[in-house]
Amino acid sequence: MSKGFKLGIFDSGVGGLTAYKEIKKILPELSVVYLGDTARVPYGNRSIETLKEFALQDLKFLESKGVSAVVVACNSLSATVLNVIKENTKLPVYDVITPVMKKIKNQDLDRVGLMGTRATVKSRAYGDIKQRIPAPLLVPLIEEGFLKGALLEAFLKHYLSDLNGKIDMLILGCTHYPIIKNEIKKFFKCKVEMIDPAETLAQDIYVNFKGIKSSGLDQFYLSDLDNKFIETANIFLGRDYNIEIKKATL
Amino acid sequence: MSKGFKLGIFDSGVGGLTAYKEIKKILPELSVVYLGDTARVPYGNRSIETLKEFALQDLKFLESKGVSAVVVACNSLSATVLNVIKENTKLPVYDVITPVMKKIKNQDLDRVGLMGTRATVKSRAYGDIKQRIPAPLLVPLIEEGFLKGALLEAFLKHYLSDLNGKIDMLILGCTHYPIIKNEIKKFFKCKVEMIDPAETLAQDIYVNFKGIKSSGLDQFYLSDLDNKFIETANIFLGRDYNIEIKKATL
Repeated sequence: MSKGFKLGIFDSGVGGLTAYKEIKKILPELSVVYLGDTARVPYGNRSIETLKEFALQDLKFLESKGVSAVVVACNSLSATVLNVIKENTKLPVYDVITPVMKKIKNQDLDRVGLMGTRATVKSRAYGDIKQRIPAPLLVPLIEEGFLKGALLEAFLKHYLSDLNGKIDMLILGCTHYPIIKNEIKKFFKCKVEMIDPAETLAQDIYVNFKGIKSSGLDQFYLSDLDNKFIETANIFLGRDYNIEIKKATL
Repeated sequence: MSKGFKLGIFDSGVGGLTAYKEIKKILPELSVVYLGDTARVPYGNRSIETLKEFALQDLKFLESKGVSAVVVACNSLSATVLNVIKENTKLPVYDVITPVMKKIKNQDLDRVGLMGTRATVKSRAYGDIKQRIPAPLLVPLIEEGFLKGALLEAFLKHYLSDLNGKIDMLILGCTHYPIIKNEIKKFFKCKVEMIDPAETLAQDIYVNFKGIKSSGLDQFYLSDLDNKFIETANIFLGRDYNIEIKKATL
């Protein structure tokens, strides 16, 4: 069982690679099957009805690949349809929000901020956090490689100025944001602690699967095979990984 | 026939409403069935294989609604899979590129620029035009309501500076760009003529269907019913229209 163990990770696209990277950093021998629904990315502005449909198709695909557990790496899905996913599988399901909520449970939630997609910010998944900022344009900016510089700074100012002085911690509530974590820190003059859901998730996975020794070989599936994925994946993975990608029919 | 005539228009999302608006302006009595694939928007960064699949599903949906002719309002589809669409229907098919190419056929193409999505700019559909600029972030900016101001100007500068002084005409090769036509004109200090494919398409439709008198009642279908559509539609239509929307299952 341990040897054949495969961890399924799914996301709307390339973003879940931030979770993949953190998990592999501490559990390099864990085999991963990664699914990115690049034919229908982004998920963050879609309705809950559509997100349910997409999530169950993603889940079914990973089950067909024989995974032993499932990680919902997408914040928008974790925030809106996690229960639907859990009700539709016998596999253990891990998400990017539960570990964050555990981590901050003793904090003064009035001093915790959340930034994310519209779907994430509107949902109840982040409980009593009141300082919520939808930042929908950061995802395309990051995917287009605007990782620093005047244009990114202008958008951080646009989205985050209202939070200045009001928070001590900020939840980076979208898979893409850890990529620009240092720029966000700089915006807050290093006075705000960043909560990276990819890191807290990886710790959760470590606790649950640290004994597992599988082959360490990974499989990558995308619903749209385009040439840009590798380029964007390199931004997310820091050019450390050489990955082969197959087409997923969802 | 004339009375029951319905013109089908499809697009990846809300963008095709620029074409809808221009057509209705000169042919208000023409009935339209509009389909926006909002569950899978945007199309502009997808592979041709995926665009084929989506386009044929869109086409089939409009055929099931009994349309008499089809308008491909999306530049990315018109640029990449128009032939596939034509091969798969008996209906007349109109697109947003053919009328533009007719219009500019006597121009010095070295002085004509094209901006569009990656899919559009990479395609051969715009023939010998060499000055081609992919401007992928303008679509999300416009959909988020950045229709003027410093952030939009910064992106226009980023994308268009290379064309300055090199062109006399610019093809607005994405459904969204006509919304910010005046800002683009200003960027070029009114020295560059804007070619708006929605307008040239509407003239083409006028020539072909000016005799038709149908009910003038329109139907709107979206693959994802979200609340934001009406808000964005208002930006595109200038708050003149009151539309009722139904769910499309593709």
